Amino acid sequence: MPQASATNRRIVLANRPTGQPDENTLRLETTSVPEPGPDEMLVRTVYLSLDPYMRGRMNDAKSYAEPVPIGGVMTAQVVGQVVKSNIEGYEVGEYVLNTSGWQDFAVSDGTQVVKLGKSPDNPSWSLGILGMPGYTAYAGLLKIGEPKAGETVVVAAAAGPVGATVGQIAKLKGCRVVGIAGGSEKCAHVVKNLGFDACLDHRSDDLAAQLREACPSGIDVYFENVGGKVLYAVLPLLNPFARVPVCGIVSWYNLPGLPDGPDMGPAIMGTILRMKVRMQGFIIFDNFGADVYQEFVRDMTAWLKNGSISYKEHMVEGLENAPEAFNQLLAGGNFGKMVVKVG
Amino acid sequence: MPQASATNRRIVLANRPTGQPDENTLRLETTSVPEPGPDEMLVRTVYLSLDPYMRGRMNDAKSYAEPVPIGGVMTAQVVGQVVKSNIEGYEVGEYVLNTSGWQDFAVSDGTQVVKLGKSPDNPSWSLGILGMPGYTAYAGLLKIGEPKAGETVVVAAAAGPVGATVGQIAKLKGCRVVGIAGGSEKCAHVVKNLGFDACLDHRSDDLAAQLREACPSGIDVYFENVGGKVLYAVLPLLNPFARVPVCGIVSWYNLPGLPDGPDMGPAIMGTILRMKVRMQGFIIFDNFGADVYQEFVRDMTAWLKNGSISYKEHMVEGLENAPEAFNQLLAGGNFGKMVVKVG
Repeated sequence: MPQASATNRRIVLANRPTGQPDENTLRLETTSVPEPGPDEMLVRTVYLSLDPYMRGRMNDAKSYAEPVPIGGVMTAQVVGQVVKSNIEGYEVGEYVLNTSGWQDFAVSDGTQVVKLGKSPDNPSWSLGILGMPGYTAYAGLLKIGEPKAGETVVVAAAAGPVGATVGQIAKLKGCRVVGIAGGSEKCAHVVKNLGFDACLDHRSDDLAAQLREACPSGIDVYFENVGGKVLYAVLPLLNPFARVPVCGIVSWYNLPGLPDGPDMGPAIMGTILRMKVRMQGFIIFDNFGADVYQEFVRDMTAWLKNGSISYKEHMVEGLENAPEAFNQLLAGGNFGKMVVKVG
Repeated sequence: MPQASATNRRIVLANRPTGQPDENTLRLETTSVPEPGPDEMLVRTVYLSLDPYMRGRMNDAKSYAEPVPIGGVMTAQVVGQVVKSNIEGYEVGEYVLNTSGWQDFAVSDGTQVVKLGKSPDNPSWSLGILGMPGYTAYAGLLKIGEPKAGETVVVAAAAGPVGATVGQIAKLKGCRVVGIAGGSEKCAHVVKNLGFDACLDHRSDDLAAQLREACPSGIDVYFENVGGKVLYAVLPLLNPFARVPVCGIVSWYNLPGLPDGPDMGPAIMGTILRMKVRMQGFIIFDNFGADVYQEFVRDMTAWLKNGSISYKEHMVEGLENAPEAFNQLLAGGNFGKMVVKVG
């Protein structure tokens, strides 16, 4: 079902899910393409970003952002092309980064739009390595994790866009880097192509023992993307004064309620206390300002140019496949940054 | 059983406890008084400090300090008087702060000894408000908690030496301060004598609801002394960018293993993530150096002098009563800083 020019497909939140989103959670609707008014433009979605944080927006709970309302278009960053423009400075055909969500077309007055030029080299990279996930990895690792040469850095979801970038930056800083990922194919990629020192399969029965062996000097920085059993395997290995940037807990996003015990609260808090751990949650655009963003763009552009950092996308074709791709992402079925090619 | 001059009573660790220490955990032994050699002195214990951290030293587990060996004298800071001296600069009769543990007498070469003078005003205060607990409160609150005027600070164990000091300093910094303590007598003291804005009894069935009411603007700093249900009542109220200095988790020190579920790990980690919380464990002498200590001594001395900070001790008579007093401390049965008057 390709993108049409006369109709707008959009995916809206039909029902708030309990646990994993299912066929009742999202609904594909078809409407007419909206018409831009004065000082507005029409943007056609080319690439749609799928990211784990979107699961939180499906809940009606206190969080760092407003939930998506029932019937509302699912939140997302997209890379689009200007189709019609009544705004000075935006030309038809130009690429933009927009926050218009899971749909084919959207009208914008330019608010929160970033210009990407007429023919950017890799337009979709603005959703990944040069966008929110790359910036999250950069600032979370360097400003909260504060890795020092010779230290051991552990990162879960190591084949994902954030984890892969965290690990590669940590290698550039002279650290021993141990990744954790799902399956041997991802682990091989993480070691061979990304240059991690080791990568462990979180599906292994003896993950904790493997991690202990892979971290003979303990763990100085744990970049938290997943929570769950990976976190619990990390806790006993944290060194005094370890830092834990908390970026995500994707293994827990689909929980319908608190899991069965034992209660690991005493283990978490006891480790923080005894090991003098600093654990800090962060939401990239809330915690860091323009100064850090400029450092990121400067460094990341240079690293991509000189080949120090490599980047992998998991491209899915067609807006209609976004719901299934999103569930795949939550289950760790993606291999690289999940992007939907919409048009 | 008063202190004698010819024998040395000492309390040693007989068995590592599982859960709460019992009559098999500690053993009172009587030996001869040791004789100081050249460049050594003999110190007689006058006041023995009892602190929750000592429970951790009874375990044979990776922690921030070596466990007490089986048969070894239990660790403690004491205030003592020099009885014999072969060290230049230490005179008989002089008071010192020493780390000689739960016993009547100890020989010292002066290592880790702090001189307190011939007739200090309140010698036992060096074990509390002017010592480790006061310094812990000061540095933990100001350097990790970073309270700002108008913010809400919550502190558990509010009638204890650390909590009481944390709350009073937070009031001096212009914060709204809510304490949590065990029982109405302690709560009344915390509000009337220490000037907290409110104090809640953690034994109440509706602690979480009471806390929500007492913190209408949420919680910006939670000074963690206790863990357990107080922590779990605090979590949903933490504001964005809240700070949580983790100083102790006394309600969990006697756990023989992890408690039954549900697993609160997702709630702890989810709150850290969504609310961008910074949680940091600290051990006062590991985290802070001489500069912070000097600030503490300067400020605390001034506050005590001008009456801004008040201090309460829970004095128990007799070394032989230390084991029971220690269990009382772990159960929250102390009212003020627990000190044993030994001699």
